[in-house]
Amino acid sequence: MASSSPSSLSPPEVPMELHVSNRQKLLDSLLRHLSDSARPLHGLVLLQGGEEQTRYCTDHIELFRQESYFAYLFGVREPGLYGAIDIATGKSILFAPRLPADYAVWMGEIKPLPYFQERYMVSMVYYTDEIVQVLVDQYKGFGKPLLFLLHGLNTDSNNFSKPAEFEGIEKFETDLTTLHPILTECRVFKSDLELALIQFANDISSEAHVEVMRKTKAGVKEYQLESMFLHHTYMYGGCRHCSYTCICATGENSAVLHYGHAAAPNDKILEDGDMALLDMGAEYSFYGSDITCSFPVNGKFTSDQSLIYNAVLDAHNVVITTMKPGVSWVDMHRLAEKIILESLIKGNILVGNIDDMMVERLGAMFMPHGLGHFLGIDTHDPGGYPKGVERPKEPGLKSLRTARQLQEGMVITVEPGCYFIDALLVPAMENANTSKFFNCEIVDRFKNFGGVRIESDVLVTANGSKNMTKVPRETWEIEAVMAGGPWPPLSKASSYTENGGEAKI
Amino acid sequence: MASSSPSSLSPPEVPMELHVSNRQKLLDSLLRHLSDSARPLHGLVLLQGGEEQTRYCTDHIELFRQESYFAYLFGVREPGLYGAIDIATGKSILFAPRLPADYAVWMGEIKPLPYFQERYMVSMVYYTDEIVQVLVDQYKGFGKPLLFLLHGLNTDSNNFSKPAEFEGIEKFETDLTTLHPILTECRVFKSDLELALIQFANDISSEAHVEVMRKTKAGVKEYQLESMFLHHTYMYGGCRHCSYTCICATGENSAVLHYGHAAAPNDKILEDGDMALLDMGAEYSFYGSDITCSFPVNGKFTSDQSLIYNAVLDAHNVVITTMKPGVSWVDMHRLAEKIILESLIKGNILVGNIDDMMVERLGAMFMPHGLGHFLGIDTHDPGGYPKGVERPKEPGLKSLRTARQLQEGMVITVEPGCYFIDALLVPAMENANTSKFFNCEIVDRFKNFGGVRIESDVLVTANGSKNMTKVPRETWEIEAVMAGGPWPPLSKASSYTENGGEAKI
Ligand SMILES: [Mn+2]
Ligand SMILES: [Mn+2]
Repeated sequence: MASSSPSSLSPPEVPMELHVSNRQKLLDSLLRHLSDSARPLHGLVLLQGGEEQTRYCTDHIELFRQESYFAYLFGVREPGLYGAIDIATGKSILFAPRLPADYAVWMGEIKPLPYFQERYMVSMVYYTDEIVQVLVDQYKGFGKPLLFLLHGLNTDSNNFSKPAEFEGIEKFETDLTTLHPILTECRVFKSDLELALIQFANDISSEAHVEVMRKTKAGVKEYQLESMFLHHTYMYGGCRHCSYTCICATGENSAVLHYGHAAAPNDKILEDGDMALLDMGAEYSFYGSDITCSFPVNGKFTSDQSLIYNAVLDAHNVVITTMKPGVSWVDMHRLAEKIILESLIKGNILVGNIDDMMVERLGAMFMPHGLGHFLGIDTHDPGGYPKGVERPKEPGLKSLRTARQLQEGMVITVEPGCYFIDALLVPAMENANTSKFFNCEIVDRFKNFGGVRIESDVLVTANGSKNMTKVPRETWEIEAVMAGGPWPPLSKASSYTENGGEAKI
Repeated sequence: MASSSPSSLSPPEVPMELHVSNRQKLLDSLLRHLSDSARPLHGLVLLQGGEEQTRYCTDHIELFRQESYFAYLFGVREPGLYGAIDIATGKSILFAPRLPADYAVWMGEIKPLPYFQERYMVSMVYYTDEIVQVLVDQYKGFGKPLLFLLHGLNTDSNNFSKPAEFEGIEKFETDLTTLHPILTECRVFKSDLELALIQFANDISSEAHVEVMRKTKAGVKEYQLESMFLHHTYMYGGCRHCSYTCICATGENSAVLHYGHAAAPNDKILEDGDMALLDMGAEYSFYGSDITCSFPVNGKFTSDQSLIYNAVLDAHNVVITTMKPGVSWVDMHRLAEKIILESLIKGNILVGNIDDMMVERLGAMFMPHGLGHFLGIDTHDPGGYPKGVERPKEPGLKSLRTARQLQEGMVITVEPGCYFIDALLVPAMENANTSKFFNCEIVDRFKNFGGVRIESDVLVTANGSKNMTKVPRETWEIEAVMAGGPWPPLSKASSYTENGGEAKI
């Protein structure tokens, strides 16, 4: 219930058992894989944690954020460490940098090795300059000790992860192919401890979205919405990092999918009559959220705004209620497209047969991005295209960050959108195969509309799905909240409870 | 005067003439240098702007911040550009990346070349793939065209700036030594247009410090102070970037000079009786601020807190009133040390002869960092050690980021501090040469005190100096503001007006 305090939340304790169990999960998978391929059950997994980066040639240090695979296995917030897991014994080892004495003056207490052992719940801790000796001593196999290093493609960035490097690595055999797909697959399925953090990131971000929504009005600048969001999630949620740069797009800008970066820096002044599209999510102890709310700046939907908004909301809701293990994500994308196109037909923006439109991939002219992506330690969490899963080639579908079937434990964003993008619609209206579908006069009315996106973070459960995002979604809910009404709502008859969230009254 | 609105400020327009005049200044200096060394007056200055960076192997894009030398000359906020200045004609040229068609869908409008020409007030704009041809055509000398590239040491980071790289560079002669020292020296002396931005960064940051001070109390977490500062400067000042990671140190943490980084992340809960040391500064349109306030968490100085605080404040004030062109910065550092040591003698913490203490470099045991550094587009602005200026070797003094004589137009931080750091004091109290100076029993009383730093940004004027930072400094001013009193103060009889700021009533 709405109260005078700006937040009902506070940052929860983070149990390091989370990372212990992540390591155990990797160990189990790796042992199973080695055993299935009749390979010896020894060797050491070795990962290199991230390093602090300075800006260009200066001594300006960027705020450090741990590399995600390393964070998954070890939960370490400090830079410059290495981590190992001995396959034969299951023992975990951290290697911490040996810091110079004046670190204590400039940077703070030099934490003794037992600090790392205790805090991160690993079996042993040494200095990084002891890596070679410790790993050699630890190894229980024959011949050169075997290291499983992390090397593999990130299918969103097309970049490769950087395998650990250290002086003396030539004393080891290295395996660069086994670890990455297995560790990536571990990350796809979230444990209850991981889900609790993603839920908190969702809770504080949902609350911040509502706070921002209430303070939105004409005359405010887009970046002020960003500032309010960042402040709420840090102040009350302890979230120092965001999952991604905030997208605070209003008016025409809401048709720019990745608005908000340095060359389009959330700098428009909100105008009466604009739609706002706010895609903002906080990260809590490495685990993220990714939430988009769309609503009218002045707090009241026009009929055109309702038309597009409800087209997207229908798609969002039907997808979530259809989701369950075994369902294909590509089918969900097509389902969302179809619902949106049907609404556009009902709204007289499009004319013709829906199946013909689907054949011509008309949906991709209004929603050029994929329906959603895995979410976890990365906003675009890896694992969308493991070996054997092919990326579709058709417009729209080729932007999908996964084409997998859903399985229990996956967390995936559901983020249908409908945008009026000249760069796509003008050619489509001129194209011989698609021009016939457009009611050009009415499309013209939406020329400066921008777009709508509705994005929630959804857990695939044993029998269905659970929406972890808790923001007003129905048009009347949004209007009520923007008019000062309580959130969460007092009545149970709202979409908020229907989607699986628990009402907090 | 304090009002009900949280800010009396709003972000000013940024005139691009600022960067036009920066370019003209470089051109004049370069022509003078070439002429003095009897070298031909042609060639092209070429700089490569910064590129967006992704995080590790992922597609997570870090918020882009332009490289500082490039920002100085061109003021460009977008990534991926190059910029040139033709020495013979004085003409400036930007090269912008040729963006793929789908940039318009994902990232926003593809700005046409004239946009860059107009916005950044350059003579010509081309695409980056036209660099070779344009520069060859532009060159007015004989033989291979000559490029002046940026390559030189940053004396704070010990890193080298990266000279521009592009395909076809072998068609040019390159000069890697001339540009860096000349351009760096240009940056040392601030124009009025630059000063206006540094002043605004100071104004909004000063206001934010006061806001934070008022909301500080026991039970709050250090990072909540950071969050309030970031919010105030972004919300009301449009400052998306900070000059550096906020240092919000309370209690013992205030003795850690660079507290606040990922391994010491502002996560302590404030306690009654703690001192707070908040070193936070916003950046506005590339130009920064760097401000430290120290004050008691509960709003009332104890006598011990007053003792240390006033020791540092005296040093801060005397240095600022002594500063003028011709004064050596090393002498200012020693002056600050001496004033602090004298106060510690008066306070019975130290005993003995001040000159003997200075010979033993006792000041560095309490203030191990330098008195201050140039401030501009970088927090540690370059130019502190041009050719011919040697870095001192003594404790404390060797940490100085410049050993130059002051000159009109320099902006330099004045940030004396006094800290109780075990790692320094314990050895000094055991050392045969210095142990005699310590009243160990009293030092012991300060064991968990932490430290005090007072930092203002000061412009060297023709006859003296001007303090650009406008925060409560006297203990009674701080106590009054923390008790809810107005800021700026209503009376003119405060340090606020004495230091050269104009009272805004
Ligand atoms: Mn998303
Ligand atoms: Mn400083």
